[in-house]
Amino acid sequence: MQIDPTTVPPREIYHRMISMIVPRPIAWVSTLSGTGVANIAPFSFFTGVTSHPPTLVFCVGNKRGGIPKDTAANILETEEFVVNVVPHAFTEAMVQTSAPYPADVNEFESASLSTTPSARVAPPRVAGVPISIECRLHQCVPIEVTPGRITSRMMIGHIELIHLDDDILDPTGAIDPGRLDLVSRLGGQSYARIGERFEVLRPTA
Amino acid sequence: MQIDPTTVPPREIYHRMISMIVPRPIAWVSTLSGTGVANIAPFSFFTGVTSHPPTLVFCVGNKRGGIPKDTAANILETEEFVVNVVPHAFTEAMVQTSAPYPADVNEFESASLSTTPSARVAPPRVAGVPISIECRLHQCVPIEVTPGRITSRMMIGHIELIHLDDDILDPTGAIDPGRLDLVSRLGGQSYARIGERFEVLRPTA
Repeated sequence: MQIDPTTVPPREIYHRMISMIVPRPIAWVSTLSGTGVANIAPFSFFTGVTSHPPTLVFCVGNKRGGIPKDTAANILETEEFVVNVVPHAFTEAMVQTSAPYPADVNEFESASLSTTPSARVAPPRVAGVPISIECRLHQCVPIEVTPGRITSRMMIGHIELIHLDDDILDPTGAIDPGRLDLVSRLGGQSYARIGERFEVLRPTA
Repeated sequence: MQIDPTTVPPREIYHRMISMIVPRPIAWVSTLSGTGVANIAPFSFFTGVTSHPPTLVFCVGNKRGGIPKDTAANILETEEFVVNVVPHAFTEAMVQTSAPYPADVNEFESASLSTTPSARVAPPRVAGVPISIECRLHQCVPIEVTPGRITSRMMIGHIELIHLDDDILDPTGAIDPGRLDLVSRLGGQSYARIGERFEVLRPTA
Protein backbone atom coordinates (compact mmCIF):
# COMPACT_ATOMS: atom_id res chain seq x y z
CA MET A 1 0.00 0.00 0.00
CA GLN A 2 1.01 3.62 -0.42
CA ILE A 3 0.36 6.53 1.95
CA ASP A 4 0.38 10.04 0.56
CA PRO A 5 0.72 12.52 3.46
CA THR A 6 -1.29 15.12 1.56
CA THR A 7 -4.34 12.85 1.72
CA VAL A 8 -4.37 11.75 5.38
CA PRO A 9 -4.36 13.78 8.63
CA PRO A 10 -1.09 14.48 10.48
CA ARG A 11 -2.24 12.26 13.37
CA GLU A 12 -2.29 9.23 11.07
CA ILE A 13 1.12 10.12 9.63
CA TYR A 14 2.42 10.42 13.20
CA HIS A 15 1.23 6.91 14.04
CA ARG A 16 2.85 5.53 10.89
CA MET A 17 6.10 7.41 11.55
CA ILE A 18 6.48 6.07 15.09
CA SER A 19 5.95 2.51 13.93
CA MET A 20 8.27 2.78 10.87
CA ILE A 21 11.23 4.55 12.46
CA VAL A 22 12.06 1.91 15.06
CA PRO A 23 13.50 1.18 17.55
CA ARG A 24 14.07 4.73 18.81
CA PRO A 25 16.38 5.62 21.70
CA ILE A 26 14.77 7.75 24.40
CA ALA A 27 16.11 11.09 25.64
CA TRP A 28 14.76 11.72 29.12
CA VAL A 29 15.30 15.46 29.24
CA SER A 30 15.57 17.52 32.42
CA THR A 31 15.28 21.30 32.33
CA LEU A 32 14.57 24.22 34.66
CA SER A 33 12.20 27.07 34.00
CA GLY A 34 13.41 30.63 34.41
CA THR A 35 11.85 30.62 37.89
CA GLY A 36 13.53 27.32 38.81
CA VAL A 37 10.70 24.80 38.38
CA ALA A 38 12.24 21.46 37.39
CA ASN A 39 10.80 19.56 34.43
CA ILE A 40 11.54 16.13 33.02
CA ALA A 41 9.96 14.49 29.99
CA PRO A 42 10.84 11.75 27.48
CA PHE A 43 11.42 12.32 23.74
CA SER A 44 12.08 9.63 21.16
CA PHE A 45 12.67 11.75 18.06
CA PHE A 46 16.23 11.80 19.35
CA THR A 47 19.65 10.96 17.93
CA GLY A 48 23.28 12.03 17.69
CA VAL A 49 24.35 14.72 15.23
CA THR A 50 28.15 14.55 15.11
CA SER A 51 31.06 14.21 17.53
CA HIS A 52 32.81 17.28 16.11
CA PRO A 53 31.35 19.49 17.52
CA PRO A 54 29.88 17.04 20.08
CA THR A 55 26.17 17.46 19.45
CA LEU A 56 22.89 15.59 19.75
CA VAL A 57 19.34 16.52 18.77
CA PHE A 58 15.78 15.88 19.89
CA CYS A 59 12.53 17.27 18.53
CA VAL A 60 9.79 18.85 20.62
CA GLY A 61 6.30 19.56 19.38
CA ASN A 62 3.71 21.92 20.78
CA LYS A 63 1.09 21.38 23.45
CA ARG A 64 -2.52 21.49 22.40
CA GLY A 65 -3.20 25.14 21.69
CA GLY A 66 -0.01 25.64 19.70
CA ILE A 67 2.38 26.72 22.45
CA PRO A 68 5.73 24.99 22.97
CA LYS A 69 5.89 22.13 25.46
CA ASP A 70 7.49 23.06 28.79
CA THR A 71 10.77 21.37 27.84
CA ALA A 72 11.11 23.57 24.74
CA ALA A 73 10.01 26.73 26.57
CA ASN A 74 12.56 26.08 29.32
CA ILE A 75 15.42 25.47 26.88
CA LEU A 76 14.57 28.58 24.88
CA GLU A 77 14.68 30.53 28.15
CA THR A 78 17.73 28.98 29.85
CA GLU A 79 19.63 27.25 26.98
CA GLU A 80 20.48 24.30 29.24
CA PHE A 81 19.30 20.70 29.51
CA VAL A 82 20.39 17.23 30.55
CA VAL A 83 19.71 14.09 28.50
CA ASN A 84 19.34 11.10 30.81
CA VAL A 85 19.16 7.55 29.44
CA VAL A 86 16.33 5.20 30.41
CA PRO A 87 17.29 1.73 31.68
CA HIS A 88 14.51 -0.86 31.65
CA ALA A 89 14.09 -0.52 35.43
CA PHE A 90 13.12 3.15 35.00
CA THR A 91 10.45 2.54 32.34
CA GLU A 92 7.41 3.15 34.56
CA ALA A 93 8.86 6.36 36.01
CA MET A 94 9.82 7.58 32.53
CA VAL A 95 6.34 6.97 31.14
CA GLN A 96 4.83 8.69 34.19
CA THR A 97 6.78 11.84 33.24
CA SER A 98 5.15 11.88 29.80
CA ALA A 99 1.83 12.91 31.32
CA PRO A 100 0.72 16.45 30.39
CA TYR A 101 1.33 18.19 33.72
CA PRO A 102 0.86 21.96 34.05
CA ALA A 103 4.07 24.01 33.73
CA ASP A 104 4.28 24.70 37.48
CA VAL A 105 4.38 21.01 38.43
CA ASN A 106 7.73 19.41 39.23
CA GLU A 107 7.58 16.06 37.40
CA PHE A 108 10.46 14.70 39.46
CA GLU A 109 8.21 14.86 42.51
CA SER A 110 5.17 13.54 40.65
CA ALA A 111 7.12 10.47 39.51
CA SER A 112 8.93 10.06 42.87
CA LEU A 113 12.30 10.57 41.21
CA SER A 114 15.40 11.81 42.97
CA THR A 115 17.83 14.26 41.44
CA THR A 116 21.58 14.71 41.48
CA PRO A 117 23.23 18.06 40.74
CA SER A 118 24.85 18.61 37.36
CA ALA A 119 28.36 20.04 37.11
CA ARG A 120 28.20 22.38 34.11
CA VAL A 121 24.50 23.26 33.77
CA ALA A 122 21.74 24.16 36.23
CA PRO A 123 19.14 21.44 35.44
CA PRO A 124 19.62 18.39 37.66
CA ARG A 125 20.31 14.84 36.52
CA VAL A 126 18.06 11.89 37.30
CA ALA A 127 19.59 10.05 40.25
CA GLY A 128 20.30 6.40 39.60
CA VAL A 129 20.43 6.35 35.81
CA PRO A 130 23.79 5.15 34.46
CA ILE A 131 24.37 7.89 31.85
CA SER A 132 23.53 11.58 31.86
CA ILE A 133 24.68 14.07 29.24
CA GLU A 134 24.86 17.73 30.23
CA CYS A 135 24.08 19.97 27.26
CA ARG A 136 23.99 23.62 26.31
CA LEU A 137 21.76 24.71 23.41
CA HIS A 138 23.84 24.80 20.22
CA GLN A 139 21.00 25.75 17.91
CA CYS A 140 17.21 25.56 17.80
CA VAL A 141 15.82 24.77 14.34
CA PRO A 142 12.14 25.72 14.16
CA ILE A 143 10.02 23.61 11.81
CA GLU A 144 7.17 25.47 10.16
CA VAL A 145 4.08 23.95 8.58
CA THR A 146 3.33 27.26 6.88
CA PRO A 147 5.48 30.43 6.98
CA GLY A 148 5.59 31.69 10.57
CA ARG A 149 3.59 28.77 12.02
CA ILE A 150 6.07 26.71 14.05
CA THR A 151 4.83 23.22 14.92
CA SER A 152 8.04 21.64 16.21
CA ARG A 153 11.56 22.58 17.24
CA MET A 154 14.77 20.63 16.76
CA MET A 155 16.84 21.24 19.86
CA ILE A 156 20.51 20.69 19.01
CA GLY A 157 22.52 20.33 22.19
CA HIS A 158 26.27 20.81 22.57
CA ILE A 159 27.57 18.09 24.87
CA GLU A 160 29.34 19.74 27.82
CA LEU A 161 29.94 16.77 30.08
CA ILE A 162 29.09 13.05 30.07
CA HIS A 163 28.50 11.10 33.29
CA LEU A 164 28.96 7.33 32.99
CA ASP A 165 28.36 4.89 35.81
CA ASP A 166 31.37 2.54 36.17
CA ASP A 167 28.96 -0.40 36.61
CA ILE A 168 27.99 -0.35 32.92
CA LEU A 169 31.56 -0.54 31.64
CA ASP A 170 33.22 -3.78 30.58
CA PRO A 171 36.80 -4.58 31.66
CA THR A 172 38.18 -2.61 28.67
CA GLY A 173 36.26 0.51 29.71
CA ALA A 174 33.73 0.22 26.87
CA ILE A 175 29.99 0.53 27.53
CA ASP A 176 28.36 -2.91 27.80
CA PRO A 177 24.89 -2.70 26.19
CA GLY A 178 23.68 -5.65 28.27
CA ARG A 179 24.54 -3.94 31.57
CA LEU A 180 23.10 -0.66 30.29
CA ASP A 181 19.79 -2.42 29.39
CA LEU A 182 18.12 0.62 27.82
CA VAL A 183 14.49 0.67 26.81
CA SER A 184 13.54 1.97 23.37
CA ARG A 185 10.32 3.29 21.85
CA LEU A 186 8.28 1.55 19.17
CA GLY A 187 4.89 2.52 17.73
CA GLY A 188 1.57 2.81 19.56
CA GLN A 189 2.17 2.62 23.30
CA SER A 190 4.92 0.05 22.83
CA TYR A 191 8.45 -0.10 24.14
CA ALA A 192 11.17 -2.71 23.72
CA ARG A 193 14.39 -3.99 25.19
CA ILE A 194 17.37 -4.69 22.97
CA GLY A 195 17.29 -8.26 21.64
CA GLU A 196 19.86 -10.43 19.89
CA ARG A 197 23.12 -8.55 19.38
CA PHE A 198 25.72 -9.31 16.74
CA GLU A 199 28.74 -7.73 15.08
CA VAL A 200 29.21 -7.18 11.36
CA LEU A 201 32.62 -5.91 10.35
CA ARG A 202 32.58 -2.91 8.05
CA PRO A 203 33.85 -3.99 4.64
CA THR A 204 36.31 -2.23 2.43
CA ALA A 205 35.25 -1.05 -1.03
CA MET B 1 33.42 8.53 35.48
CA GLN B 2 33.06 11.83 33.64
CA ILE B 3 34.06 12.63 30.07
CA ASP B 4 34.67 16.24 29.12
CA PRO B 5 34.59 16.56 25.31
CA THR B 6 37.10 19.40 25.43
CA THR B 7 39.74 17.01 26.79
CA VAL B 8 39.38 13.99 24.48
CA PRO B 9 39.54 13.69 20.67
CA PRO B 10 36.32 13.70 18.57
CA ARG B 11 36.93 10.05 17.62
CA GLU B 12 36.61 8.99 21.26
CA ILE B 13 33.48 11.10 21.71
CA TYR B 14 32.06 9.47 18.57
CA HIS B 15 32.61 6.00 20.02
CA ARG B 16 30.96 7.01 23.29
CA MET B 17 28.04 8.64 21.49
CA ILE B 18 27.24 5.58 19.39
CA SER B 19 27.25 3.34 22.45
CA MET B 20 25.18 5.73 24.63
CA ILE B 21 22.45 6.68 22.14
CA VAL B 22 21.08 3.19 21.53
CA PRO B 23 19.40 1.40 19.88
CA ARG B 24 19.35 3.56 16.75
CA PRO B 25 17.07 2.95 13.77
CA ILE B 26 18.87 2.81 10.42
CA ALA B 27 18.03 4.95 7.39
CA TRP B 28 19.28 3.19 4.27
CA VAL B 29 19.34 6.18 1.95
CA SER B 30 19.23 5.99 -1.84
CA THR B 31 20.14 8.99 -3.97
CA LEU B 32 21.18 9.83 -7.52
CA SER B 33 24.03 12.08 -8.54
CA GLY B 34 23.38 14.87 -11.03
CA THR B 35 24.73 12.56 -13.74
CA GLY B 36 22.48 9.69 -12.64
CA VAL B 37 24.88 7.47 -10.68
CA ALA B 38 22.89 5.66 -7.99
CA ASN B 39 24.16 5.65 -4.42
CA ILE B 40 22.95 3.89 -1.30
CA ALA B 41 24.41 4.09 2.19
CA PRO B 42 23.22 3.53 5.80
CA PHE B 43 22.95 6.26 8.44
CA SER B 44 22.00 5.76 12.08
CA PHE B 45 21.94 9.35 13.32
CA PHE B 46 18.36 9.22 12.05
CA THR B 47 14.93 9.94 13.51
CA GLY B 48 11.55 11.53 12.87
CA VAL B 49 11.05 15.29 13.23
CA THR B 50 7.29 15.84 13.22
CA SER B 51 4.24 14.63 11.31
CA HIS B 52 3.09 18.18 10.58
CA PRO B 53 4.83 18.85 8.22
CA PRO B 54 5.72 15.18 7.66
CA THR B 55 9.49 15.28 8.13
CA LEU B 56 12.40 13.08 9.15
CA VAL B 57 16.10 13.82 9.58
CA PHE B 58 19.43 12.08 9.23
CA CYS B 59 22.93 13.43 9.70
CA VAL B 60 25.78 13.02 7.23
CA GLY B 61 29.40 13.75 8.00
CA ASN B 62 32.27 14.36 5.63
CA LYS B 63 34.61 11.94 3.93
CA ARG B 64 38.24 12.07 4.89
CA GLY B 65 39.54 15.27 3.34
CA GLY B 66 36.59 17.35 4.51
CA ILE B 67 34.29 16.98 1.53
CA PRO B 68 30.65 15.85 1.94
CA LYS B 69 29.90 12.15 1.61
CA ASP B 70 28.31 11.20 -1.72
CA THR B 71 24.84 10.94 -0.14
CA ALA B 72 25.04 14.57 1.05
CA ALA B 73 26.53 15.82 -2.21
CA ASN B 74 23.76 14.11 -4.20
CA ILE B 75 20.98 15.52 -2.01
CA LEU B 76 22.43 19.03 -2.16
CA GLU B 77 22.47 18.67 -5.96
CA THR B 78 19.11 16.94 -6.58
CA GLU B 79 17.12 17.57 -3.36
CA GLU B 80 15.67 14.04 -3.51
CA PHE B 81 16.24 10.83 -1.56
CA VAL B 82 14.54 7.65 -0.41
CA VAL B 83 14.81 6.24 3.12
CA ASN B 84 14.55 2.46 3.03
CA VAL B 85 14.24 0.41 6.22
CA VAL B 86 16.59 -2.49 6.97
CA PRO B 87 15.02 -5.82 7.93
CA HIS B 88 17.31 -8.31 9.63
CA ALA B 89 17.58 -10.32 6.40
CA PHE B 90 19.17 -7.31 4.64
CA THR B 91 21.84 -6.68 7.29
CA GLU B 92 24.80 -7.99 5.31
CA ALA B 93 23.84 -6.05 2.17
CA MET B 94 23.28 -2.90 4.20
CA VAL B 95 26.67 -3.13 5.89
CA GLN B 96 28.28 -3.80 2.49
CA THR B 97 26.93 -0.44 1.30
CA SER B 98 28.72 1.35 4.15
CA ALA B 99 32.08 0.74 2.47
CA PRO B 100 33.79 3.92 1.22
CA TYR B 101 33.31 3.44 -2.52
CA PRO B 102 34.38 6.16 -4.98
CA ALA B 103 31.56 8.49 -6.11
CA ASP B 104 31.26 6.86 -9.54
CA VAL B 105 30.52 3.41 -8.14
CA ASN B 106 26.90 2.23 -8.03
CA GLU B 107 26.59 0.61 -4.59
CA PHE B 108 23.42 -1.21 -5.59
CA GLU B 109 25.51 -3.24 -8.02
CA SER B 110 28.40 -3.69 -5.59
CA ALA B 111 26.03 -5.14 -2.98
CA SER B 112 24.00 -7.13 -5.54
CA LEU B 113 20.85 -5.20 -4.68
CA SER B 114 17.91 -4.75 -7.01
CA THR B 115 15.99 -1.52 -7.33
CA THR B 116 12.36 -0.56 -7.83
CA PRO B 117 11.33 2.80 -9.29
CA SER B 118 10.01 5.48 -6.97
CA ALA B 119 6.80 7.35 -7.78
CA ARG B 120 7.51 10.95 -6.72
CA VAL B 121 11.31 11.22 -6.78
CA ALA B 122 14.03 10.03 -9.13
CA PRO B 123 16.20 7.91 -6.76
CA PRO B 124 15.10 4.27 -6.80
CA ARG B 125 13.91 2.23 -3.84
CA VAL B 126 15.62 -0.93 -2.62
CA ALA B 127 13.63 -3.87 -4.01
CA GLY B 128 12.37 -6.27 -1.37
CA VAL B 129 12.43 -4.05 1.71
CA PRO B 130 9.01 -3.67 3.33
CA ILE B 131 9.01 0.13 3.81
CA SER B 132 10.45 2.92 1.67
CA ILE B 133 9.87 6.61 2.28
CA GLU B 134 10.23 8.96 -0.68
CA CYS B 135 11.53 12.36 0.44
CA ARG B 136 12.28 15.80 -0.92
CA LEU B 137 14.80 18.00 0.88
CA HIS B 138 12.94 20.26 3.31
CA GLN B 139 16.02 21.91 4.78
CA CYS B 140 19.73 21.21 5.17
CA VAL B 141 21.15 22.38 8.51
CA PRO B 142 24.93 22.64 8.30
CA ILE B 143 26.81 21.99 11.54
CA GLU B 144 30.02 23.97 11.94
CA VAL B 145 32.88 23.18 14.28
CA THR B 146 34.27 26.68 13.74
CA PRO B 147 32.67 29.49 11.70
CA GLY B 148 32.57 28.40 8.06
CA ARG B 149 33.98 24.91 8.70
CA ILE B 150 31.09 22.50 8.14
CA THR B 151 31.70 19.01 9.55
CA SER B 152 28.20 17.53 9.25
CA ARG B 153 24.83 18.24 7.69
CA MET B 154 21.38 17.50 9.04
CA MET B 155 19.27 16.51 6.07
CA ILE B 156 15.62 17.17 6.88
CA GLY B 157 13.40 15.36 4.40
CA HIS B 158 9.77 16.14 3.63
CA ILE B 159 7.91 12.84 3.28
CA GLU B 160 6.28 12.71 -0.15
CA LEU B 161 5.08 9.11 -0.26
CA ILE B 162 5.32 6.03 1.97
CA HIS B 163 5.40 2.50 0.55
CA LEU B 164 4.34 -0.24 2.96
CA ASP B 165 4.39 -3.93 2.14
CA ASP B 166 1.04 -5.50 3.09
CA ASP B 167 2.90 -8.49 4.58
CA ILE B 168 4.07 -6.44 7.59
CA LEU B 169 0.58 -5.25 8.54
CA ASP B 170 -1.52 -6.94 11.21
CA PRO B 171 -5.24 -7.63 10.63
CA THR B 172 -6.12 -4.09 11.82
CA GLY B 173 -3.77 -2.53 9.24
CA ALA B 174 -1.16 -1.50 11.83
CA ILE B 175 2.53 -2.25 11.32
CA ASP B 176 3.55 -5.41 13.19
CA PRO B 177 7.09 -4.88 14.57
CA GLY B 178 7.68 -8.62 14.66
CA ARG B 179 6.93 -9.06 10.97
CA LEU B 180 8.97 -5.95 10.15
CA ASP B 181 11.97 -7.36 12.09
CA LEU B 182 14.21 -4.30 11.67
CA VAL B 183 17.85 -4.26 12.63
CA SER B 184 19.18 -1.37 14.71
CA ARG B 185 22.64 0.04 15.33
CA LEU B 186 24.52 -0.11 18.62
CA GLY B 187 28.10 0.94 19.41
CA GLY B 188 31.32 -0.42 17.94
CA GLN B 189 30.48 -2.67 14.97
CA SER B 190 27.38 -3.98 16.73
CA TYR B 191 23.81 -4.31 15.58
CA ALA B 192 20.72 -5.67 17.30
CA ARG B 193 17.27 -7.02 16.69
CA ILE B 194 14.34 -5.79 18.73
CA GLY B 195 13.89 -7.87 21.89
CA GLU B 196 11.11 -8.15 24.46
CA ARG B 197 8.24 -5.82 23.60
CA PHE B 198 5.68 -4.45 26.04
CA GLU B 199 3.06 -1.73 26.28
CA VAL B 200 2.88 0.95 28.93
CA LEU B 201 -0.22 3.14 28.82
CA ARG B 202 0.42 6.84 28.94
CA PRO B 203 -0.79 8.17 32.28
CA THR B 204 -2.81 11.28 32.90
CA ALA B 205 -1.41 14.07 35.06
